Amino acid sequence: MKSFINEDFLLTTEAARRLYHEHAEKMPIFDYHCHLNPAEIYENKKFSDIGEAWLAGDHYKWRVMRANAVPEKYVTGDADYREKFTRFAEVMPGLIGNPIYHWSHLELKRFFGIDDLLSQATADVIWDCANRKLQSPDGAARALIAESNVRALCTTDDPADDLKYHRMLAEEGFNTKVLPTFRPEKALNITDHGFPAYMEKLGEAAGVKIGTISDVKTALAQRLDYFEKQGCRLSDHSFGSPDFTIWDEKAAEEAVRKGLAGDIPTKYEAAAYQSAMMDWLGEQYAEKGLTMQIHIGAIRNLNTLRYRELGADVGCDSIGDVISAASLAALLDRMAVKDRLPKTILYTLNAADNDKIAAAAGCFQDESTAGKIQFGSAWWFNDHYDGMTAQIKSLANIGVLSRFVGMLTDSRSFLSYPRHEYFRRILCEIVGGWIDRGMAPADYDGIGRIIEDICFNNVWNYIKPEK
Amino acid sequence: MKSFINEDFLLTTEAARRLYHEHAEKMPIFDYHCHLNPAEIYENKKFSDIGEAWLAGDHYKWRVMRANAVPEKYVTGDADYREKFTRFAEVMPGLIGNPIYHWSHLELKRFFGIDDLLSQATADVIWDCANRKLQSPDGAARALIAESNVRALCTTDDPADDLKYHRMLAEEGFNTKVLPTFRPEKALNITDHGFPAYMEKLGEAAGVKIGTISDVKTALAQRLDYFEKQGCRLSDHSFGSPDFTIWDEKAAEEAVRKGLAGDIPTKYEAAAYQSAMMDWLGEQYAEKGLTMQIHIGAIRNLNTLRYRELGADVGCDSIGDVISAASLAALLDRMAVKDRLPKTILYTLNAADNDKIAAAAGCFQDESTAGKIQFGSAWWFNDHYDGMTAQIKSLANIGVLSRFVGMLTDSRSFLSYPRHEYFRRILCEIVGGWIDRGMAPADYDGIGRIIEDICFNNVWNYIKPEK
Amino acid sequence: MKSFINEDFLLTTEAARRLYHEHAEKMPIFDYHCHLNPAEIYENKKFSDIGEAWLAGDHYKWRVMRANAVPEKYVTGDADYREKFTRFAEVMPGLIGNPIYHWSHLELKRFFGIDDLLSQATADVIWDCANRKLQSPDGAARALIAESNVRALCTTDDPADDLKYHRMLAEEGFNTKVLPTFRPEKALNITDHGFPAYMEKLGEAAGVKIGTISDVKTALAQRLDYFEKQGCRLSDHSFGSPDFTIWDEKAAEEAVRKGLAGDIPTKYEAAAYQSAMMDWLGEQYAEKGLTMQIHIGAIRNLNTLRYRELGADVGCDSIGDVISAASLAALLDRMAVKDRLPKTILYTLNAADNDKIAAAAGCFQDESTAGKIQFGSAWWFNDHYDGMTAQIKSLANIGVLSRFVGMLTDSRSFLSYPRHEYFRRILCEIVGGWIDRGMAPADYDGIGRIIEDICFNNVWNYIKPEK
Repeated sequence: MKSFINEDFLLTTEAARRLYHEHAEKMPIFDYHCHLNPAEIYENKKFSDIGEAWLAGDHYKWRVMRANAVPEKYVTGDADYREKFTRFAEVMPGLIGNPIYHWSHLELKRFFGIDDLLSQATADVIWDCANRKLQSPDGAARALIAESNVRALCTTDDPADDLKYHRMLAEEGFNTKVLPTFRPEKALNITDHGFPAYMEKLGEAAGVKIGTISDVKTALAQRLDYFEKQGCRLSDHSFGSPDFTIWDEKAAEEAVRKGLAGDIPTKYEAAAYQSAMMDWLGEQYAEKGLTMQIHIGAIRNLNTLRYRELGADVGCDSIGDVISAASLAALLDRMAVKDRLPKTILYTLNAADNDKIAAAAGCFQDESTAGKIQFGSAWWFNDHYDGMTAQIKSLANIGVLSRFVGMLTDSRSFLSYPRHEYFRRILCEIVGGWIDRGMAPADYDGIGRIIEDICFNNVWNYIKPEK
Repeated sequence: MKSFINEDFLLTTEAARRLYHEHAEKMPIFDYHCHLNPAEIYENKKFSDIGEAWLAGDHYKWRVMRANAVPEKYVTGDADYREKFTRFAEVMPGLIGNPIYHWSHLELKRFFGIDDLLSQATADVIWDCANRKLQSPDGAARALIAESNVRALCTTDDPADDLKYHRMLAEEGFNTKVLPTFRPEKALNITDHGFPAYMEKLGEAAGVKIGTISDVKTALAQRLDYFEKQGCRLSDHSFGSPDFTIWDEKAAEEAVRKGLAGDIPTKYEAAAYQSAMMDWLGEQYAEKGLTMQIHIGAIRNLNTLRYRELGADVGCDSIGDVISAASLAALLDRMAVKDRLPKTILYTLNAADNDKIAAAAGCFQDESTAGKIQFGSAWWFNDHYDGMTAQIKSLANIGVLSRFVGMLTDSRSFLSYPRHEYFRRILCEIVGGWIDRGMAPADYDGIGRIIEDICFNNVWNYIKPEK
Repeated sequence: MKSFINEDFLLTTEAARRLYHEHAEKMPIFDYHCHLNPAEIYENKKFSDIGEAWLAGDHYKWRVMRANAVPEKYVTGDADYREKFTRFAEVMPGLIGNPIYHWSHLELKRFFGIDDLLSQATADVIWDCANRKLQSPDGAARALIAESNVRALCTTDDPADDLKYHRMLAEEGFNTKVLPTFRPEKALNITDHGFPAYMEKLGEAAGVKIGTISDVKTALAQRLDYFEKQGCRLSDHSFGSPDFTIWDEKAAEEAVRKGLAGDIPTKYEAAAYQSAMMDWLGEQYAEKGLTMQIHIGAIRNLNTLRYRELGADVGCDSIGDVISAASLAALLDRMAVKDRLPKTILYTLNAADNDKIAAAAGCFQDESTAGKIQFGSAWWFNDHYDGMTAQIKSLANIGVLSRFVGMLTDSRSFLSYPRHEYFRRILCEIVGGWIDRGMAPADYDGIGRIIEDICFNNVWNYIKPEK
């Protein structure tokens, strides 16, 4: 019987198979947005077992376990990893249709050569087989990265971070470039209770005493310079449904005054602050040739009880409201009008906004960079077969697919690189389907090059990690 | 020539056919949400003819007739049923692509063995053939239910209702369980002109003099106890795009004061009242182990002229705005934080919210019940091939399809049970398609069980109608 | 090797091919909404070359060139058309998946018999070949229209226009009817700086001194009478996400007072004015039997820099927010309640609203006209394979597809008639797919008639251009 994860997995036409096997498959990976821990890369982290590797931090898996009424003890609780893995194995057969079914079996096949489908019946065999490798040198963090043909990867880092692991990795000369990403999330979340403490920390890192919005900028500018010296090529920002139409410098200043004093600024003041900061940050990125990533539409920590028990990032985040077209336009236009709009990647968590994002991006393209304003890959709750298909089609219909910078893992796990393979198979299935149905010409050379570009070349040339 | 409604209707792959014929087809029906009239079940209603059965109350059909410029006389007017049926038959060939085309022909085939396609040419023959059965004992309400293999059904009932028909049916021992559903719609619609009169009626039913929000709760608690004793296992609620982020007990109290005095509360006060009431109701449902259904996103009675002439539910309702993510989160979180979140089924009429609902549900799952928070089946304007497909895929991608409680008719008609067949065929077509394209393994036993669960077992175990 | 644009382009089933070749293909075109310049028709405009014909005014093409970092000089700048065409040819192979890839090759094939795919390599040959025809009598505006089998077309015109070219064309007796459309855009954009000057112009055209809202109506009524005499059968309106729930005659009057004085009315006042005007205009259209077109959801001129350099309509418009369900309902209901709701076509630029529009339309159908309230064809950023498919399916699922008035070009180009062919192929692919998969019966006569109706007969009977 053919393996579930066989060489033609997801490829239903001859054209798709050809594009995948002759073009996509061979391309290296540039994982330009992930949440790997640089310390774990530097220290070449080893996992005790597949339970730890899969279940210690993966809130996708926690969610599907909870939806199957697995007791929290076996989800995030104090059960051991063997027990947790067993519980996860038990729910796996019921996960058909969910990307975790595909991701998990891709990972078992690619890293461990396992063809068995995970279930209660196969849990023990798979446990043993996977652990054998994980506990060997081939199963350590760096080996997993190398095995996955990762040319470069970008972690996600706080401006106050000293980036020592990035520095040490660079000095040591790990084959895969490990670059930091500048994510001033906490400096923008001015309504958070932790804001004053974070300003303290940021000020210390930058050697700046922060009392005004100008001081915040001075501190971030210092840190951004530092990040750039460590090879940083991108920034990252995350918003719910922000209102960038608000432009009010006095209110922004008042927000900082309140925020530093431990008071909560009004919604209007906070928006004014975020507009002002994004505008200024975009200018810095533009001047340095960095790429600005903006993730729109998440709503976080919906479940107060879980938040109190477990904290953030535990599988209780969700899809937020769409961004207003005017807000999105204001964000980009304010930079563009000054000729200070950086290369920008816009991701949305609410796929009802796909077309809106793709269309807005098209209004700000210019001759400085091909595909300068990108509609980013299907993100988080959209990161599955249908979601990636929707994003790719929306981009193709409204923008220019051949300029797409493609996939990223957005992952905390060293085992998630097969998501690039998953994306590439879906991409080839879509484009191959066009050839198969006569919607694109059977020009395999030309279209094969486009596939290779989307898999790797575009993003390499766009981000310029070797600059 | 093969019948239009043939055994493999909608099933285009061998895998789909196998899942349907070996698994889905044989499962009984638990129609856990419908609008049948319990008096008509008790009295074993007989229809004069297929005109009455189809056109006396079906606003779906009225809409498509109006879109074909059929004079209102033949829609809801005083033409006789023969004339109305003839007009409906005339428009039928032009309804390809609309679910009514499929539903109608499924009903003709299943209940009357009719293979002819309905049109002007066949109207007379079909009229005679269908009426023969409808006028025989096999065409009476209970026979139609029994023939459809309905194990249980839940009607939708007002808290002030005495449920006498449910009681008499239970005493008489009809094979299909007929259970009431608690729908305190009128008690929540505090801006309706009918609110004071309804409070009077509710108070009488409960033996409570209603003057405060606390009295409303006392009255509803009394009625809910009564409903539970009559076998009620679910509640039902319907909202447009409610704002559950508003929490203001004083405003809620003021809403009741105004509402009882025949004044219209402000939008804010009304929202405060609805938030307070839903929170309290959810707590009651949780304590009783009942399931809470919430239908979101309808906007009603858009056409004032028709409303004046014909009243509500005449085919002039529509799809409303999406619910804000924060509102949805507030509703669920307030109950969850007290550990009083009941089993909940969330339906949306605006399919642009499918993913948002599926994702929010996933934040509140817990170990008490598998699939505790459900993204409910495609509702009303989404109740068609594409809409059901979208809902199933959204649920599969973001949640856990195998825990889905599946289909319901939501119908006022005794002839609408084939909508379960329609759903099952679509479900098997989707999942069979996954097998066919290698996206799910060819594990027919395991996946067949999942199909059976979604068709019947899940909802039976979730609602527990025999408790 | 088979041509890319071959006779079965986009038709993947035998049923689709049969519907297309036996029914759709032979129908004439009624292009009831376009932006052709009537002067160019009257003067029988000749294009210097395919560069001018394609790139002088097509913002779709400008957008994809910019996304490929083509310098603005070759987009809207002072490069000559040969250079611009060459740059466009260079980006063409990378446009697979974008409708421009299909549109361009359809145009090359239909008008010039060119089978080559446009690229850097073929640019010169195609340049020569296309220009040969364009520079011959067969390539002039009227010949292109005649060759495309256009029975009638409706331009889009300002109420102050004297319609002299329409008049002269009618007098001269061009085979294709060229009718004006009444688009009082500038009279409704009361917050525009140009409003007072436009009121001056409108007043002059109508012989009315405009000082109040009543004067605006008097002037427009005069112009509408004049348009009607010149054969006008439709009006057209465009809005972002308007709030038609606002009804306040005093505020509307105040808006006019401010607008005429060169002040900017508040958002509320402007909305009140637009509500009042649309209500009055709808009434006029109803009384004259004209069709009202409403385009919802555009947001314009996002890129201030480009707007300053190039003005409006240069490829910097985008998809706006959805319209609120209440606003849409208010617009239609106010007319309906007075029995003065005209035939109406509702277009949305935000496809997340497709179902909402389709459902709302269904609430206002009546016996005066089949398909009286239309959900209009996929518009602008939705005008592609997936967008047209989504619109057709949404309409079929929720409304009555067989009553659809179908396609229009919405184009400024004499070469864009193959978009009707494109639409028809997609329509036949969808409906043929239903037959192929057993979702519609293999009734080729009946369904073929529906296809013919959607391609031409419906809109001809609906608009009544020969009235």
